[in-house]
Amino acid sequence: MKQLILVRHGESAWNKLNLFTGWTDVDLTEFGCHEAYEAGLLLKKEGFTPEICFTSYLKRAVKTLNQILDAMDMDYLPVEKSWRLNEKSYGAIQGLNKADTAAKYGDDQVKMWRRSFDVQPPKLEMDDPRSPRRDPRYNELSDEEIPLTEALKDTIARLMPYYQGTILKAFEKHDQVLVVAHGNSLRGIVKELKGMSNDEIIAFNLPTAVPYVFEFDDNMKLQNDRFLGDPEVIKAKMQSVANQAKKK
Amino acid sequence: MKQLILVRHGESAWNKLNLFTGWTDVDLTEFGCHEAYEAGLLLKKEGFTPEICFTSYLKRAVKTLNQILDAMDMDYLPVEKSWRLNEKSYGAIQGLNKADTAAKYGDDQVKMWRRSFDVQPPKLEMDDPRSPRRDPRYNELSDEEIPLTEALKDTIARLMPYYQGTILKAFEKHDQVLVVAHGNSLRGIVKELKGMSNDEIIAFNLPTAVPYVFEFDDNMKLQNDRFLGDPEVIKAKMQSVANQAKKK
Repeated sequence: MKQLILVRHGESAWNKLNLFTGWTDVDLTEFGCHEAYEAGLLLKKEGFTPEICFTSYLKRAVKTLNQILDAMDMDYLPVEKSWRLNEKSYGAIQGLNKADTAAKYGDDQVKMWRRSFDVQPPKLEMDDPRSPRRDPRYNELSDEEIPLTEALKDTIARLMPYYQGTILKAFEKHDQVLVVAHGNSLRGIVKELKGMSNDEIIAFNLPTAVPYVFEFDDNMKLQNDRFLGDPEVIKAKMQSVANQAKKK
Repeated sequence: MKQLILVRHGESAWNKLNLFTGWTDVDLTEFGCHEAYEAGLLLKKEGFTPEICFTSYLKRAVKTLNQILDAMDMDYLPVEKSWRLNEKSYGAIQGLNKADTAAKYGDDQVKMWRRSFDVQPPKLEMDDPRSPRRDPRYNELSDEEIPLTEALKDTIARLMPYYQGTILKAFEKHDQVLVVAHGNSLRGIVKELKGMSNDEIIAFNLPTAVPYVFEFDDNMKLQNDRFLGDPEVIKAKMQSVANQAKKK
């Protein structure tokens, strides 16, 4: 049996402040560190032993993974980082308050920017201080690859080469693979694995720091998928994410 | 100019308890985390921008590196882990108190086990609970590669293929490389770089969590080497390491 474990990063400072984060490199809160460590303890208790890990270039994901590995006593595991696992770029609304933005543009417009499959938020300028072009960690990216804004569709498009070519390929050598990333990059993987429609994936909210396990047979045919942990807690976490962009 | 930055991990729980650690996977103390983070702040303040990092399979080194990267706001950097960067194996004296062992066998014998170039401490049995053969992280190693004890000479011998073939090779693509490892594996690198004799390297004590920078010209000819930070603090840290195995 092959197992893919997906984990969305723990609470970040901007989740808490209710700001659009996207590619902004925001840190975990203390609670976010704690829930990440708890996710690791849960994986350990249930006997998981991943052999390789993947994460994004953003510290809220990297540090969630570090916490998980530390809780599992598996700090030694190989970790590969890729910008392709980064969160969806929110373009020019990065750094704005979600509730304020909803009050100004209306719930529906903001929901489109957050949750439509193919409507992009307004673009960043290439030389905006928030542009990834100005951040040396993205020097390897061509101008065409630098996202100045993204709809979920665009996030999935830049994720897929890495998902297909690297993450799935890891199962040729390994039985258990751990991916720690973001709400929208993980949506791309879930959509692909579960064959969800565009509408279905938009309505689907991944809870923070809850291991989501996909099990495959040896031919990588999906057998089942499940969240680990207390179903009531998971439900509450999903609801909390869904409510974030509503007006106050 | 090319730069290699070496950092010995911060204080570990067993440094503090004065036990022989070797391949035992002991955690950092709170102070150890703190001094690691401080090393990262110092590297950042002095403008270092490593492009790739190497560390061991032991959590005191991995977590020191994580702290450094976090302090530098460079959590996204690629990290490669290798058992070849692990601390010297102390064989059957792993887990024993350094001062007790010195009281029992004499300062000179213990100094030989700790600091001679080619005298090994007593061997572990292959099936000892402390044997790396019983730890799944070392499954990739053949029985011949599993160290049941090591003199510094042996540590250097298993380090060198990785140092030559991977760490030095990284300079073909990169200008700055960061290595976070252990007192004895780093001794191997320092000995090689500075052309030290066996006696010189034995007398040389690396301070914990102090960045040690080697600068090379573009042909990788060594130009100079220096520790970063307050010389008085560094001297006190070196002295403290040198004193650890003395009788109380």
